[in-house]
Amino acid sequence: MTLPPTAVLRGAQAAAARMADRDTPFVFDDWYVAAFAEEVGPHLLARRLLGRRVVLYRDTAGAVVALDDRCPHRSMPLSAGRLDGDTVVCGYHGMRFNAQGDCIDVPSQPQCPKHVGVRAYPVVERGPVVWIWMGDPAAADLSRLPPQPWLESPDWETSQGFLTLHGSYVRLHENLLDLTHLTFLHEKSIGTPDYAKAPFESVIGDGRFALLRDVVPTTLPPVWADPTGLKGQGQAARIVRSEFLGPGLHEVSVAFYDCHLPADQRRTFHIRTAHMPTPETATTTHYFIVHGRDFAQHDAAMTRTMHDQLFQAFHEDVVGLALQEEALAGTPPDELYEFSIAADAPAVAMRRYLKDRAR
Amino acid sequence: MTLPPTAVLRGAQAAAARMADRDTPFVFDDWYVAAFAEEVGPHLLARRLLGRRVVLYRDTAGAVVALDDRCPHRSMPLSAGRLDGDTVVCGYHGMRFNAQGDCIDVPSQPQCPKHVGVRAYPVVERGPVVWIWMGDPAAADLSRLPPQPWLESPDWETSQGFLTLHGSYVRLHENLLDLTHLTFLHEKSIGTPDYAKAPFESVIGDGRFALLRDVVPTTLPPVWADPTGLKGQGQAARIVRSEFLGPGLHEVSVAFYDCHLPADQRRTFHIRTAHMPTPETATTTHYFIVHGRDFAQHDAAMTRTMHDQLFQAFHEDVVGLALQEEALAGTPPDELYEFSIAADAPAVAMRRYLKDRAR
Amino acid sequence: MTLPPTAVLRGAQAAAARMADRDTPFVFDDWYVAAFAEEVGPHLLARRLLGRRVVLYRDTAGAVVALDDRCPHRSMPLSAGRLDGDTVVCGYHGMRFNAQGDCIDVPSQPQCPKHVGVRAYPVVERGPVVWIWMGDPAAADLSRLPPQPWLESPDWETSQGFLTLHGSYVRLHENLLDLTHLTFLHEKSIGTPDYAKAPFESVIGDGRFALLRDVVPTTLPPVWADPTGLKGQGQAARIVRSEFLGPGLHEVSVAFYDCHLPADQRRTFHIRTAHMPTPETATTTHYFIVHGRDFAQHDAAMTRTMHDQLFQAFHEDVVGLALQEEALAGTPPDELYEFSIAADAPAVAMRRYLKDRAR
Repeated sequence: MTLPPTAVLRGAQAAAARMADRDTPFVFDDWYVAAFAEEVGPHLLARRLLGRRVVLYRDTAGAVVALDDRCPHRSMPLSAGRLDGDTVVCGYHGMRFNAQGDCIDVPSQPQCPKHVGVRAYPVVERGPVVWIWMGDPAAADLSRLPPQPWLESPDWETSQGFLTLHGSYVRLHENLLDLTHLTFLHEKSIGTPDYAKAPFESVIGDGRFALLRDVVPTTLPPVWADPTGLKGQGQAARIVRSEFLGPGLHEVSVAFYDCHLPADQRRTFHIRTAHMPTPETATTTHYFIVHGRDFAQHDAAMTRTMHDQLFQAFHEDVVGLALQEEALAGTPPDELYEFSIAADAPAVAMRRYLKDRAR
Repeated sequence: MTLPPTAVLRGAQAAAARMADRDTPFVFDDWYVAAFAEEVGPHLLARRLLGRRVVLYRDTAGAVVALDDRCPHRSMPLSAGRLDGDTVVCGYHGMRFNAQGDCIDVPSQPQCPKHVGVRAYPVVERGPVVWIWMGDPAAADLSRLPPQPWLESPDWETSQGFLTLHGSYVRLHENLLDLTHLTFLHEKSIGTPDYAKAPFESVIGDGRFALLRDVVPTTLPPVWADPTGLKGQGQAARIVRSEFLGPGLHEVSVAFYDCHLPADQRRTFHIRTAHMPTPETATTTHYFIVHGRDFAQHDAAMTRTMHDQLFQAFHEDVVGLALQEEALAGTPPDELYEFSIAADAPAVAMRRYLKDRAR
Repeated sequence: MTLPPTAVLRGAQAAAARMADRDTPFVFDDWYVAAFAEEVGPHLLARRLLGRRVVLYRDTAGAVVALDDRCPHRSMPLSAGRLDGDTVVCGYHGMRFNAQGDCIDVPSQPQCPKHVGVRAYPVVERGPVVWIWMGDPAAADLSRLPPQPWLESPDWETSQGFLTLHGSYVRLHENLLDLTHLTFLHEKSIGTPDYAKAPFESVIGDGRFALLRDVVPTTLPPVWADPTGLKGQGQAARIVRSEFLGPGLHEVSVAFYDCHLPADQRRTFHIRTAHMPTPETATTTHYFIVHGRDFAQHDAAMTRTMHDQLFQAFHEDVVGLALQEEALAGTPPDELYEFSIAADAPAVAMRRYLKDRAR
């Protein structure tokens, strides 16, 4: 075949035009991970978030501060200066800023001009991560930050990591909302051949989008078969919920159990992964990840093993999404189209939602 | 002097505007080398050709297949998937495509949508190379592919090689159509001081452009003096025909003989080079080369020596053309002009032809 | 705080719009350093100056020649050819140009076309540097080149060096016109804590802009305390004049003396630095520097020590200005603003002057 009929192609392009993609403006009025909590201390940390240059530090009381990383005098990055107590001193001409971003000293003159300063961003520290609100500070709304008690619960054993994605955060959310790809992209890590053909259900809510998939019976890959003891061929149920909870948060929850035992006799094992993408630029993404389990607690060797194997899979995503981005960028716009299938329904709805919110 | 008079400059710019250059659209409706035949096997080979991303493979019957290298579902390069018999399976969600480019399976659902697929390109394998037609498949016209029987003849000893040119294919054709530059650019390899001043004749045909040059008498450089025995000062004739045969093919044919012997007593030695540039992007070119001779057959050491010395010269072209491209790109457009001389006549006509065909 | 009130922000942006910056066209009608004299010899030297590609060489009489570095036939850089006596031979098809830039030979034909050639630039050699006039040659005006007799005087011991600045020459001039930054950017090299708060005076003339600063009493950093013997705490006066003398020249003159001795009993030590930025592109600058002193003459070890310590400081400028350029480029234009303070008065006037001249 050559290209699809023009009507089909234009229809696909019209559908795509309603969905967010790398060209869609960022959704500023929401929470994104700025850093892992352990990264932020009494020192200056520069990071680009949603296209903006931000400097982060912890003040003397331990609170996280996030300021625009550009001195408004002559544009030197504040992160190239130094932290002096709760204040930042620019490394060029010594302008000093407090934690609210106000300029409070200009060394070469006795008076400090009024109305000079940098933007200070609302931040919230929750367990292992620091969330930042890059939009209108007056609109900063904690109710937009879904509770994730498991991240701070002693019943859950967690590990965390960071990847740089050379692709749009939109496509990472899309990737997570249809795990059909476990069978192919993750064939050698966490996927199994039956995954792609398992029945699924779409959940399309108001800003929440999920795909639920029951793979029953299935054979678990070693990373979960070993610690759960569910090692038999076709012994296990693998019940998966992938859910978009906001532009900065996607959670994957999985339950495993012996599908040959009655419900009242079996133990259910849970794993959960918080995927927290923060756009750096339109085509690069900070990819923060915290993974947890409610079994094999206090087993550091198991934590290490699961972490390594899962991050191998997340690395496969990052490699694949970068290839996708290259192919998208390398296709003449008038020839670019994508067709969607049934399993894309939550992702299509999610991308329309992001596009609507970007307006 | 400073710039030429405005009228002269504008005249040169008007002349240049009628000639193809790196900004001119590609000529899609013609044949270009996609790969050497030996590169294509039962595995996926990704290559950018005329700006398009193509994946090549050989099917189970040994035929070469060329498809667009982008899954129309979510834009993963097909070359990142796997070849399964005659079909390609996308490495993201497992969509399967046959050798005609049709999507024939979507694993996550029972039915495969209609009208979904990727472009399949006509290909023709001839001797050492695979030719591809990137334009309208219905217009694929074998009569546009000039026969080159010497490439498959046992009387010719050949060797082949590949260079990446950081320049436009247009300028490579231009380079080949006036070999005056042998005296300067190839001063240390295959050029001689008398080459630039030898008489020449232009041939300007319908889509064929040639420059013929008789360098008689001349002294051959060692690369040809040694195998032909024409080692004397001023002993040789060097009769050269450089011919543009299409946007993807230029052939240089050279005859050497002892110019002091009568025609019926002398032996004539021939060499021939197929220069096959395939645009990768507007400013980068895949440069495929096959060189042959009708003497010193079955002499592998001679083949090696000639190959090495000729590729040294072709490397000089590639280096020079990249410098030319940098200078073109680095000159303000309103100051950019080039003047043409008599030896440029075939190249100017060729560039006008490419410009006309690009429309 | 967040952003300043809109009126303040728009006011700052309006002020900035009147000042030169990296987007402002270059000032062509003035003198810039093309090279150190010792770099130019009987060989071809390619350099980009004010965005133009220039080739420099010394003719057989020792005079410096500067030509456009692009053959007007087929755009090969002339610097890729060879120097033959006073003429340049293009390395592609052998066109020959004399020191005036006229094409005087085309090897492949008996006649050389008229009106073909390249631009030749006026150059003036003065002591250690070669100055070039990139604008209208008819307007080349030596009176625009301020005399700097100390550069050729036996009473001054000098050393020279070169840095590549990844930033605009405009911001380098700005940097030099307010040395408040010595206390911060050069805290570890040539700055002292009291420098930023010392009184200063602005001088705003017709194309000349200066800031004068008397740091009295002060403690000299070792680089000057050692050779002058002014090693005591608060023993020294440090009298500094930073002056913009043209787009290609800024001079910093400093006097040191014992501030506790009466004027008629003290010795005054002088240092002087010619900062000579030549734009390469809008965001990269060739930074030529000659430093001199009128004491410790013929002391090569002292020259080495001072050179190393000063170039450490100049390197700090180059690093800082590159960070500034990144922050400027990385800020959305509608949010970009800078506020100026009293010490910026000469720099603001200088940037307005450059903007006016660019028109």
